[in-house]
Amino acid sequence: MFAKEEKEKIMKLAFLEADKAEQQGEIPIGAVIVDAEGNLIGRGYNRRELDEDATRHAEIIAIQEACKNLNSWRLIDCSLFVTLEPCPMCAGAIINARLKNVYYGAFDPKAGACGSVVDLFAFTKFNHHPQIFGGLYREQAAQQLKNFFKNIRQQNRI
Amino acid sequence: MFAKEEKEKIMKLAFLEADKAEQQGEIPIGAVIVDAEGNLIGRGYNRRELDEDATRHAEIIAIQEACKNLNSWRLIDCSLFVTLEPCPMCAGAIINARLKNVYYGAFDPKAGACGSVVDLFAFTKFNHHPQIFGGLYREQAAQQLKNFFKNIRQQNRI
Repeated sequence: MFAKEEKEKIMKLAFLEADKAEQQGEIPIGAVIVDAEGNLIGRGYNRRELDEDATRHAEIIAIQEACKNLNSWRLIDCSLFVTLEPCPMCAGAIINARLKNVYYGAFDPKAGACGSVVDLFAFTKFNHHPQIFGGLYREQAAQQLKNFFKNIRQQNRI
Repeated sequence: MFAKEEKEKIMKLAFLEADKAEQQGEIPIGAVIVDAEGNLIGRGYNRRELDEDATRHAEIIAIQEACKNLNSWRLIDCSLFVTLEPCPMCAGAIINARLKNVYYGAFDPKAGACGSVVDLFAFTKFNHHPQIFGGLYREQAAQQLKNFFKNIRQQNRI
């Protein structure tokens, strides 16, 4: 568990990742992973369209980078911060990577797998159960997504 | 939908991928993706330990290769064949990639996300619902996994 100031600092890094996606025309979703001391060990932003690859979500990229940095597929005692509630693929990757904590921003009523559509972490049979903290800076996170889609609609009207 | 002979031929390719994992000491799980005509467009085998990366499951690697080959994150009209029931991460990636059909071998009572622990494809809110055909050559698939773990246990006794 991190202190409020530290969570804010780390979540800001996730928003910076989301900004990178937005600047390249991608849906703005960003993620970072920190170790138990709060050191940044992985980061990523949505690159689905840029890379034409369905697996290139912010969380997957951040997990891959963190695994590389730790030289381990087990991200024990590490925490993921992401601006949007993870989808089933990313929630599954969170379980597979044994992440300890997940902090996410906006809720995703269409694809959220941390409670909005399904709560993958509630199935006791899975061999790992991270702690989930949803809705962290959710207004800012939801606003960034809303603005992005509003701009897209306006561009399409021109 | 593929004819029985064609399904057998394609599933054999998935077993060949699983063999590659086994030869390198990985849990033997293999996957291939074919297009509507049955052409091989992606393949992969479990490389979690080899790459020290929690996301390196057979299905994820096959999906990434298929997206690269089609230069599209949408694998519309494509089918995935995999020797073991996909986990939540891989079932989520199947939804994200818009795969049409999924054929899998052995059931996975510990982590299966196609019905064994959770059926991710049964949630109507998700925006894509592939057709699932479970238990294809499940005895062969289960036997390969059983033999692998039996050998590991025996090696650990020496």
